[in-house]
Amino acid sequence: MEDDFSKALRQTADLMDKELRTLLPVSEGLEKRLFDAMRYAVLSPGKRLRAFLLIQSADLFAVPRLHSVRVAAALEMVHSYSLIHDDLPCMDDDDLRRGLPTVHKKFDEATAVLAGDALQSLAFEIVSDADTHPSAEVRIQLAARLARAIGGQGMVGGQVMDIHAESNPIDMATITRLQRLKTGALISFACVAGGILGHASPPQLQALKAYAHDLGLAFQIADDILDEEGTAEEMGKATGKDAAAGKATFVSLMGLEDARVHAAILVDQAIDHLDPFGPKADLLRHAAHFAIHRRN
Amino acid sequence: MEDDFSKALRQTADLMDKELRTLLPVSEGLEKRLFDAMRYAVLSPGKRLRAFLLIQSADLFAVPRLHSVRVAAALEMVHSYSLIHDDLPCMDDDDLRRGLPTVHKKFDEATAVLAGDALQSLAFEIVSDADTHPSAEVRIQLAARLARAIGGQGMVGGQVMDIHAESNPIDMATITRLQRLKTGALISFACVAGGILGHASPPQLQALKAYAHDLGLAFQIADDILDEEGTAEEMGKATGKDAAAGKATFVSLMGLEDARVHAAILVDQAIDHLDPFGPKADLLRHAAHFAIHRRN
Repeated sequence: MEDDFSKALRQTADLMDKELRTLLPVSEGLEKRLFDAMRYAVLSPGKRLRAFLLIQSADLFAVPRLHSVRVAAALEMVHSYSLIHDDLPCMDDDDLRRGLPTVHKKFDEATAVLAGDALQSLAFEIVSDADTHPSAEVRIQLAARLARAIGGQGMVGGQVMDIHAESNPIDMATITRLQRLKTGALISFACVAGGILGHASPPQLQALKAYAHDLGLAFQIADDILDEEGTAEEMGKATGKDAAAGKATFVSLMGLEDARVHAAILVDQAIDHLDPFGPKADLLRHAAHFAIHRRN
Repeated sequence: MEDDFSKALRQTADLMDKELRTLLPVSEGLEKRLFDAMRYAVLSPGKRLRAFLLIQSADLFAVPRLHSVRVAAALEMVHSYSLIHDDLPCMDDDDLRRGLPTVHKKFDEATAVLAGDALQSLAFEIVSDADTHPSAEVRIQLAARLARAIGGQGMVGGQVMDIHAESNPIDMATITRLQRLKTGALISFACVAGGILGHASPPQLQALKAYAHDLGLAFQIADDILDEEGTAEEMGKATGKDAAAGKATFVSLMGLEDARVHAAILVDQAIDHLDPFGPKADLLRHAAHFAIHRRN
């Protein structure tokens, strides 16, 4: 079964790569540099875990892949935009991402800012397009939830808290809220969007949201553990930076062992939330295990 | 009649200020700095010409102000986001905007990038919300058109061309395309959005788009003329920068007199496009004159 999961994850990554290549614009005109930067960021190799969660959630309701893959592409574009801006010199100032130069290193800062900006717009353009779902009601729900998930009261709010945490002590309650916003909001959107595409009932949407909520936090704790233990080679980005900067992480606040236990409890909770979906949700259950057992 | 226009413009600015204050989030938590920066940028005094165009276009179809003012607020947020990012050190590196320190000067660069990002998301959140229009079909059309207008093939594409123009010679065809994207796309959205809110017919939408198309270009040519002639005090921002940097403008390419004539012709054309709407469109006609006769 673990093998089925790895295969499904790889197949999703391939599917996404193909879809993203089609959806990203190309130009030989003056916009070429912008479009090249957008493609460079979005098409760099990645696990596509967010896309996987969205497509698997949609599969629970037999949503045509034709639809779910487009929303998943929009989600990956938003994720890429957030990474491009997080890596900027005025934020995390990172030179490496997924083992490759970050966008402002490969291109320049202005292009990095604008590529992120344009990727956010493109995500909304794709979600709003009639090809994504025949129902305008479904599309507008997706757009509204995406906007809330990534704005100042979602992902960007989390990033602001994260910057604050770089130079201020924070406690467990604050780091939990920070991570629920910074990475959790987009992971929640992934699972809920699958349900919306499939006209899920309110209790079903609630179950997906609760699953994503626990999974998102487990994922982030695992990230902090990997950051503590991993090498730059394994992670494809600079590691140990948070510890070196004296920045609070789940590991620094709880210790390595407690962080491991906490993440495992969250994964069990996440899996419990999937009960209503029966065996159809097995790949989502494996995704929860994967979140804390991955090597990068 | 000119007086009616000035009064209407001022009333719209007051209306927008009230609406924007309500729609912008507040927080006493760690997001406070982000929300303060968003409010600072959006609520700084401005003509609100884009909002005016949207509300007046919607008024042609007797759209309740309750609806048009929300879309106008989203539009002003997008406009503010684009100014915040354009002013960044890695782009135009401006210290002054509307007579006040730019966001990265008043706050810091990271906050400026994130405030712009969050304003873009908030614009889509507002447009998608059921309070904006009862019809999901209308809302999704607005979201789709907004996304296209401001993305890599719209406003951001224009900004990329503008950066290119700073260090490369460009001709009239290129500067026209650049400005049609950089400022024209959002002005077009303003007028077309008013029509969409009012269930305008395709020929009516076409007329509004054609009006906006000519008005937007006239507005930009007038901007270049003001930049050439105005003082920083009048403009509330640095002037003469383009000329000093050797950057092509309509004035440098056509000469001052020809630029004036060209702008006046565009205004006449813009006004002609409003014929189907009769006297109801008088304020839009005055807006076209205002675009080239303003002092800042």
